[in-house]
Amino acid sequence: MAEPLTIYGDPGSGNCLKVKWVADHLGSPATWRDVDVPGGGTRRPEFLALNPAGRVPIVVFPDGAVLSESNAIIIHLAEGSPLIPQAPFARARMLQWMFWEQYSHEPYIAVRRYQLHYLKRVPDELDPKLAERGADALRLMEETLERSAFLVGDALTLADVALVAYTRMAHEGGFDLADYSTLRSWLGRVEAGLGIGAYGGPA
Amino acid sequence: MAEPLTIYGDPGSGNCLKVKWVADHLGSPATWRDVDVPGGGTRRPEFLALNPAGRVPIVVFPDGAVLSESNAIIIHLAEGSPLIPQAPFARARMLQWMFWEQYSHEPYIAVRRYQLHYLKRVPDELDPKLAERGADALRLMEETLERSAFLVGDALTLADVALVAYTRMAHEGGFDLADYSTLRSWLGRVEAGLGIGAYGGPA
Repeated sequence: MAEPLTIYGDPGSGNCLKVKWVADHLGSPATWRDVDVPGGGTRRPEFLALNPAGRVPIVVFPDGAVLSESNAIIIHLAEGSPLIPQAPFARARMLQWMFWEQYSHEPYIAVRRYQLHYLKRVPDELDPKLAERGADALRLMEETLERSAFLVGDALTLADVALVAYTRMAHEGGFDLADYSTLRSWLGRVEAGLGIGAYGGPA
Repeated sequence: MAEPLTIYGDPGSGNCLKVKWVADHLGSPATWRDVDVPGGGTRRPEFLALNPAGRVPIVVFPDGAVLSESNAIIIHLAEGSPLIPQAPFARARMLQWMFWEQYSHEPYIAVRRYQLHYLKRVPDELDPKLAERGADALRLMEETLERSAFLVGDALTLADVALVAYTRMAHEGGFDLADYSTLRSWLGRVEAGLGIGAYGGPA
C-alpha cells in the first residue's frame, strides 16, 4: 500500500477541504492534520518551516516534499484522472475557472464569510466591495451553468471542486442563494459527485 | 502558416504582457488588440460579449473560442514546451507559484501600482495592507531565489514569467527593490530569457 500523504488543513476552510475531497474521491491514502487558522496555527514556527507563505492547505508527501496552494495540490493529485479533461482546450478552460476562483470568487465570498462567521463582524463594518464582487461572481457562475451541467461541459472536473468549496458556504458570508436556482442544482450535483453530502455548517 | 490568435490586452498590464511574451517566445503568430482598461475598455458591451468577467487579457482563437485568465492562457499556449517542466512535481511547483502569484502577489503589488501610477493616488490614501503584503511577497521570492536560479529549479518556467510581470514594475507601486539583490539578478535573467529587455516604464 502507498504511504499516505499528509494534509495540513483547517476543517472550516473550503480551500483545505478541496484537497481532502479530491484525495478521498481518488482513493489516495491521506492523513489529515488540523491547523487552527483563527487560533494562529499558520503563524507558528513549526508550520512556517513547512510553508513560509503561512497558509493552509499544504500537503507533505512521504519523501518530505511540501506543496501549497489548494488548486495546485488538487491538480497534482488528480493528474491522469477523469477530474481533469484530456482535451487540451477543456483542460485550459478548467484552469481558467480555477484561477478565476482564487482571484474573483474566494477573495470576496470566502473573505466575507471569514469576517462575518469567524471574526463576528457585522455587515456595516465590511468593505462593500466584498458583497458586490461576491454577487458578481455568483451571477457569472449562474449564467454559465444555465448552458452546461458543470463548469466545463457535462462532466465533473476540478473547476467544480474548486468552486463548490466556498459557494456551498456562501450563505455564511451573507450571500443568499435563493435567487440562484441553477447554481443550487449544480451544488447538489457536485456534492453528490464527490460523495460529500450537503453542507451542514463548519466543523 | 497557422492562423494567428488574437490577444486582447492593455499594454500597461503585466497580466496582459505575460501572454504576449509567451506567444512571442514560442513563435506563435499572434495579433495584439489594445484594450484601454483605465478608459473603461473592459466595460464596453463588445468586450463583455467576449469575456463576461470583464477582464483582460483574453485570447481569441481562430475558431472563435475565447480563453481568459492570464495564467490559464500561458499554460495552454506553452503546453509541451520547455517553459513547462515535464517532471510531475516540478510542474506542480510551477502551478503553486502561479496560483500564489494571483492570490498573494498581484493583488498587492499590481493593485498598489495601479492606485499610485494610474489613479494618481498618494500612499496615505491607500490600504496599508497593500504595502505590507506586497513586501511579504517580495521577501518570500528573495528567499526562494537565494536557493535556486529560477523559481522552479534551474530553468526558466511559466512561474518566472507569471511573477516577473509585476515584479519588474514593483517600483511604480512604491516597492523599492534596492534591498532585494537576488530578486534583481533573477529579474535580469528572466528578461534575458524571454528576450524582453529591461522594463522602461508603461507603454
